[in-house]
Amino acid sequence: MNIIFIGAGNVATHLAKALHAKKQHIVQVVSRTTLSAQKLAESVGASWTTTPEEIEKADVYIYAVSDSALQEVIRRNPQKKGLHIHTAGSLPLSVFEGEMERGGVFYPLQTFSKQKPVDFAKIPLFIEANSATDRELLQKLADSLSKKVYAADSQQRQQLHLAAVFACNFTNHLFAVAEQLLNEAKLPFDVLRPLIEETVQKTTTMSPLDAQTGPAIRHDLNVMDKHIAALTAHLLWQDIYRLISESIQTRK
Amino acid sequence: MNIIFIGAGNVATHLAKALHAKKQHIVQVVSRTTLSAQKLAESVGASWTTTPEEIEKADVYIYAVSDSALQEVIRRNPQKKGLHIHTAGSLPLSVFEGEMERGGVFYPLQTFSKQKPVDFAKIPLFIEANSATDRELLQKLADSLSKKVYAADSQQRQQLHLAAVFACNFTNHLFAVAEQLLNEAKLPFDVLRPLIEETVQKTTTMSPLDAQTGPAIRHDLNVMDKHIAALTAHLLWQDIYRLISESIQTRK
Repeated sequence: MNIIFIGAGNVATHLAKALHAKKQHIVQVVSRTTLSAQKLAESVGASWTTTPEEIEKADVYIYAVSDSALQEVIRRNPQKKGLHIHTAGSLPLSVFEGEMERGGVFYPLQTFSKQKPVDFAKIPLFIEANSATDRELLQKLADSLSKKVYAADSQQRQQLHLAAVFACNFTNHLFAVAEQLLNEAKLPFDVLRPLIEETVQKTTTMSPLDAQTGPAIRHDLNVMDKHIAALTAHLLWQDIYRLISESIQTRK
Repeated sequence: MNIIFIGAGNVATHLAKALHAKKQHIVQVVSRTTLSAQKLAESVGASWTTTPEEIEKADVYIYAVSDSALQEVIRRNPQKKGLHIHTAGSLPLSVFEGEMERGGVFYPLQTFSKQKPVDFAKIPLFIEANSATDRELLQKLADSLSKKVYAADSQQRQQLHLAAVFACNFTNHLFAVAEQLLNEAKLPFDVLRPLIEETVQKTTTMSPLDAQTGPAIRHDLNVMDKHIAALTAHLLWQDIYRLISESIQTRK
């Protein structure tokens, strides 16, 4: 099976390398950036181009470009046959409609950094396709990489992406807020590590809803008032403190 | 050294048992609740009472009661000698002023559940005292339990507590939000686990500020608008989504 990658960013790089390691044939890498295209193409033994109009014929086209660029590159791809797959959490399968006959989605739920190697075997993969045949093809491709393959339609995938934003992107930002608050008190972020690990670990044995602790769930207004007063130099964080506390108190 | 525990909740239980295991003499447990007092007293070989006026003479008194109850129980304790220590993150050392001659703070930065055993050796302990002698006594007590003992004044401790609320209590709530969003899409919370682990793991090699990913930091308005639209049934979460996204975009 010949595969062409459109995109050479973090997702494309990790996915292409993982497929290459599983003996899949990556024949071409397409990217606006010469350097990225060249680098990824070299590491998987493929040719490369910066021009979508030069995309060759293949069995599968995997698009791993920014959500905003996807529509244009689909339009400019002269190859209308084959299976066209995107990797975006928040875009529906229907983006291929009117351009390609066969569309699919292959969404790896993980945060990728270029430098950091990832173990695909542990990454949940969410697949979607228009036909049973293509669903099967995607299932095989996914099974070759990961032990956790799920079918998810476009609506489920969008909700999944939204949940991931809360649980990961927003969580990371709260870590950044905590880091700055600690810096202001001349304390290292490291002192929070055991507490963070315990917070995550607890969710493996109980629902986060039942694991909730802290001043908001205890309705400890004394402490909450002190905390809000301590945030006068960070008005946005004050609002975040109030809203999340309100949300904690509403849920129970 | 004789120790009396005032309080028999999660913090008191874990701390008393850990000190008992290190051969410290817990001589009395004081709690409003007969059952809690009895249970903890039994497990550490101490007597118990529900009446603060019956507190006996000891070398050290450790208060692990709710912030709002602390002031009253200090006042009602007839024993004004000895070292009086509280365990609260957001209360200053000065709560003992005018009542006790010698005050101190012993703050374990961890979230305790009664059922779940904790390894004190890994819990950061923050200590504070009015005199060098008591600081030394607290340091010894803390060193016997944990490898991570820090001196922190009342202002540092309050900022620490605030940072912990963001990094742990609020993070746990974001997990709860994610869990409900996934439930609505008939997906299990487990699919997020690898992503959550990676998010936490990343902070060991880089600052959370540099590790930020997601639609907000990419200024991906398309995705953000879709997410906000998907939250129309949860107006509070919509506001949280907007505020945290704004805060992410402001930081860089």
